[in-house]
Amino acid sequence: MGISKKKSIIQTQGKGTYEITGLITDALHDSGFSEGLINIFIQHTSCSLVMMENADPSARVDLERFMEDLVPEDYPSFTHTYEGPDDMPSHIKMALTRTSEQIPFSAGRLQLGTWQGIFLWEHRSSPHSRKIITTCIGE
Amino acid sequence: MGISKKKSIIQTQGKGTYEITGLITDALHDSGFSEGLINIFIQHTSCSLVMMENADPSARVDLERFMEDLVPEDYPSFTHTYEGPDDMPSHIKMALTRTSEQIPFSAGRLQLGTWQGIFLWEHRSSPHSRKIITTCIGE
Amino acid sequence: MGISKKKSIIQTQGKGTYEITGLITDALHDSGFSEGLINIFIQHTSCSLVMMENADPSARVDLERFMEDLVPEDYPSFTHTYEGPDDMPSHIKMALTRTSEQIPFSAGRLQLGTWQGIFLWEHRSSPHSRKIITTCIGE
Repeated sequence: MGISKKKSIIQTQGKGTYEITGLITDALHDSGFSEGLINIFIQHTSCSLVMMENADPSARVDLERFMEDLVPEDYPSFTHTYEGPDDMPSHIKMALTRTSEQIPFSAGRLQLGTWQGIFLWEHRSSPHSRKIITTCIGE
Repeated sequence: MGISKKKSIIQTQGKGTYEITGLITDALHDSGFSEGLINIFIQHTSCSLVMMENADPSARVDLERFMEDLVPEDYPSFTHTYEGPDDMPSHIKMALTRTSEQIPFSAGRLQLGTWQGIFLWEHRSSPHSRKIITTCIGE
Repeated sequence: MGISKKKSIIQTQGKGTYEITGLITDALHDSGFSEGLINIFIQHTSCSLVMMENADPSARVDLERFMEDLVPEDYPSFTHTYEGPDDMPSHIKMALTRTSEQIPFSAGRLQLGTWQGIFLWEHRSSPHSRKIITTCIGE
């Protein structure tokens, strides 16, 4: 049993979901572990993690639009607005989704379902550098 | 310290929450571990995990109805509809709840609160076979 | 590699977010571990965990108000009401946020982002004693 950690940076280009499954697979490969659990953690409160179908991009478009409708930039009672109209909705979308995710692995491979992909969800309108820490616990 | 993993299948009968606390307890028992952490992971993007009160079923009925109102099948802007009207809402309900959950255990027992149960939430209308991976890390 | 566990109680004073970052830091310090992953788990279904910006309290005020609007106490179809009008909304807010959270640590410090704080979110109107279990896996 051991621990293996890796830091990565994802450069986003504004609102949207960015697949990071390959990055997580790479971190697992670097660990050299065969059996265990991988944790993905993002060091931010205005982007989040989400598992999502990675076959048809239209599912992600609909998800993003739904969330934009649910937490609109012009929500009347927001007071935390000095960082721009997209800031407060970003925090709420983060709170409603995930900051960390755990995925088991076996035989050196992530045990994802057939259609499961891991995505970083950028909630801010402008490009950002997003820091991801992956921690493998295994053997 | 070691890792113990188990795969299980839950057969669902359409939309609703299905308690899996007993299944998780069994996986912990099979591990033989006394102290540690158990991870529950589902390999799907149209069902999810949720912790919920397991005393009075009316709380789950209200939760399910609320989510059905929040993400209705006839949401006007959905484009990802070829798998049926319940498919896109399923992905959104999954994104708003959980794909993995972690629960500590001690003396060989899950450290759940008095009223906490673990549920698989089926978001599709038709029956599905749902794959769950439980990973115990402990000693 | 080893496991270190700690139980804590937070006394809440009604609805709101209560920062527990210091409590988690203390549990990590008590473990004596340098590298690893910490799990935070709450033993309740009417409060939850949330990561949130800890610089400007107005962001949390807006988050709390948004969630109050999204899941109002007078939601017409609720049937699970005998524990008071704030009970059923509490369960739904819990389901939409988090019961467990995982945070990596390195050199004996939580690897949080600059603005990230960990909060217990009390969803009930009256004061409650809330039990938190922190589990450090590390070395």
